[in-house]
Amino acid sequence: MKEIRVGIIGFGTVGSGLAQTLYEQKERLTQKTGAVVVLARVADINIKCLPNHLQGTVLTADANDIFNDPSIHIVVELIGGIEPARSFILKAISKGKHVVTANKALLSIHGREIFAAAVANGVEVGFEASVGGGIPVIKSLKESLVANRIEAIQGIMNGTANYILTQMTDHGTPFAEVLKDAQQKGFAEADPTYDVEGIDTAHKLAILMTIAYGLHVKFDDITVEGISGIRPIDIDFAREFGCRIKLLAISRNHGDHVEARVHPTMVPVDHMLANINGAFNAIQFTGDTVGDVLLYGLGAGMMPTGSAVAADVVDIGRNILSGSINRVPALSYLPEYIGEPTITPMSRLTCPYYFRVTALDQPGVLSTISGIFGKYSISIQSVIQKGRQDDEPVHIVFRTHLASEEAVEKAIGEIDALPFCTDTTIKIRVLVDEK
Amino acid sequence: MKEIRVGIIGFGTVGSGLAQTLYEQKERLTQKTGAVVVLARVADINIKCLPNHLQGTVLTADANDIFNDPSIHIVVELIGGIEPARSFILKAISKGKHVVTANKALLSIHGREIFAAAVANGVEVGFEASVGGGIPVIKSLKESLVANRIEAIQGIMNGTANYILTQMTDHGTPFAEVLKDAQQKGFAEADPTYDVEGIDTAHKLAILMTIAYGLHVKFDDITVEGISGIRPIDIDFAREFGCRIKLLAISRNHGDHVEARVHPTMVPVDHMLANINGAFNAIQFTGDTVGDVLLYGLGAGMMPTGSAVAADVVDIGRNILSGSINRVPALSYLPEYIGEPTITPMSRLTCPYYFRVTALDQPGVLSTISGIFGKYSISIQSVIQKGRQDDEPVHIVFRTHLASEEAVEKAIGEIDALPFCTDTTIKIRVLVDEK
Repeated sequence: MKEIRVGIIGFGTVGSGLAQTLYEQKERLTQKTGAVVVLARVADINIKCLPNHLQGTVLTADANDIFNDPSIHIVVELIGGIEPARSFILKAISKGKHVVTANKALLSIHGREIFAAAVANGVEVGFEASVGGGIPVIKSLKESLVANRIEAIQGIMNGTANYILTQMTDHGTPFAEVLKDAQQKGFAEADPTYDVEGIDTAHKLAILMTIAYGLHVKFDDITVEGISGIRPIDIDFAREFGCRIKLLAISRNHGDHVEARVHPTMVPVDHMLANINGAFNAIQFTGDTVGDVLLYGLGAGMMPTGSAVAADVVDIGRNILSGSINRVPALSYLPEYIGEPTITPMSRLTCPYYFRVTALDQPGVLSTISGIFGKYSISIQSVIQKGRQDDEPVHIVFRTHLASEEAVEKAIGEIDALPFCTDTTIKIRVLVDEK
Repeated sequence: MKEIRVGIIGFGTVGSGLAQTLYEQKERLTQKTGAVVVLARVADINIKCLPNHLQGTVLTADANDIFNDPSIHIVVELIGGIEPARSFILKAISKGKHVVTANKALLSIHGREIFAAAVANGVEVGFEASVGGGIPVIKSLKESLVANRIEAIQGIMNGTANYILTQMTDHGTPFAEVLKDAQQKGFAEADPTYDVEGIDTAHKLAILMTIAYGLHVKFDDITVEGISGIRPIDIDFAREFGCRIKLLAISRNHGDHVEARVHPTMVPVDHMLANINGAFNAIQFTGDTVGDVLLYGLGAGMMPTGSAVAADVVDIGRNILSGSINRVPALSYLPEYIGEPTITPMSRLTCPYYFRVTALDQPGVLSTISGIFGKYSISIQSVIQKGRQDDEPVHIVFRTHLASEEAVEKAIGEIDALPFCTDTTIKIRVLVDEK
């Protein structure tokens, strides 16, 4: 029987999940492909032996043993980070190996170099697992929505951040406390920066924008704000405005420019994205033909990510078996049609806003602040001021109609300079579906 | 430039949507495939001319003109129904044409014959549009979840039924009134039987089960109940139990037997499927590797369905261009591995139930009914009896713990024979996620 021979670099959580999947699904994969997927080699510098079920798989500490094995078709890179992952992938490609990776950080920064090398060497790079874990995001965008101009991408793409916000919403617990608990339970990394500051989400958005629009979007193109500044009081006020706070990746396609932003967002409760809870992810594409399509599932974890990596291995394997390598272009568009993005400056953004101003409870405060909003043509939809406790400053909360980010920045600058404002004003953008 | 040449049979809503999509997305498709998708011919007996933008497309009243055109690679069947659709598809296949169809009724009844003919003739049959309209259901199941044993399929697969239930839920309007309104607005067919009686949903479930499990499941295998018996009072009681009523397709894979059922279901409000409203569809797959994945979008309509048909055309087109026909088996598993299903008898089903008993308001009614449930080991979780109006019979509503359908049928038979029960007892199954 024909074989699809695989080498894995990095035998951590996802690597061992993939090995387990290939073992458990072996017969099923043969029944679907007519071939056997063989895990030929595993390279990892930290482990001494492989699980018992991996009979016949060779363990090595040297990734070169994989690159130099002429029998291996597909190299799966699962060590993460930039180096040596980048060098390993480029070396695999130069040796004529196909590559599968879940490394969103690498692809969103060095993707252009990697995909160009793959084209030059006539090999494939599969990266389904880089966005949304086991959710079929990349294949759906590239193949199922092929006959669509993608108008917008909106999604919850980081399970840790969504878990924290969900806990804060359900229990009113402060951010730091939920984070600490999540770290103890293993739901959050020891260094949670990538997850809670929106960096991981931005990596993923860059990848999706590239294939959605046929533009070389990279991580640096994306404006990123995290959730560490969100307080339970903001979640409570959001509830009063009929919203939940979610960390969203948002991109809208304006034709000659595209939005690229990751930030906490107030999402109306009747929107699907408001109802994605816990560690789940959901990514919504808006296509001019199909309308809104939303894909939901576990965006991380050993087995879900293993499912996506295995699907890429089989996908490339089918192309090897049928002699149709690069049957679908890696980035959806053929390389010669991929252009440079013009990113919408944040100052040009227009949306409704939520502000929480913290001020001393004095006469004239509300009128002064309202006056500043009026000066910048920021129209207020509603205001909430809750009774103060003792001599503490009060929170005055505003929900605006559509306003421009440029005006908002200026207004907040003036407001925060007022003598009675005791803390920086919190600004959260409100999601509106532009149709 | 290379061409993928297409003929459409049936130029109704979806046919013209496809033609419009191929026209509007022409340049984009070339940028993604390196080829041109050409709509060579359209066959329809009811139209006199084609839209202006279809320059160069030949209109005919005779489908044979498409079968006999040696330049045409792919025949798209969009007339629906069993005949002549079946004969047309078999003829196209016998002429060596690839086929794309959205015809779920046909595939769920004659799929076996059609797919066998396709295998014998070495052609492909694409049917993404047959389930979930523009939502990438089929491709995700066949390719993205390839390394999964599918444990369960649960979904809202008919937009008309879901629209009606949503209207009933939001406005308390009776079924007949909402249906009439939906018909006037064009959201429901003049003959709504297929949609509201669950038949269309069952057609789709048969197709999904076949590719999910590698079993030849057909429409007749599925137990079907519709929503025409649902009353606003049931929706109100569901709300009191923290649920919404949805028409679900449900299949669970027990290994040696598989559940296959379509019926109104009480879905807890915190379940994603409870929050799918209006004409939207959502299909959830549970895989042993990936966990739960849910796909959401518009399950019908000119353009969403056109998006799915166009994706199939491109998918087959890529295989033509790269010489990899049947790169992915049409039914996910290779034909030799597809077996016969053993369907779980409904009597063996176990789930929580909702009952609405209608009875005269007499002493001893509740104890008699409760006694019958007890006799059949049906354990009651909660009971609601609302105050009667004048001399009308009262509704007594029960929500049970897990109970067997066999016991439930016997108990209801006895209850409905009681002299003080004035109407047939309504039974609605309650969704529980078995983990």
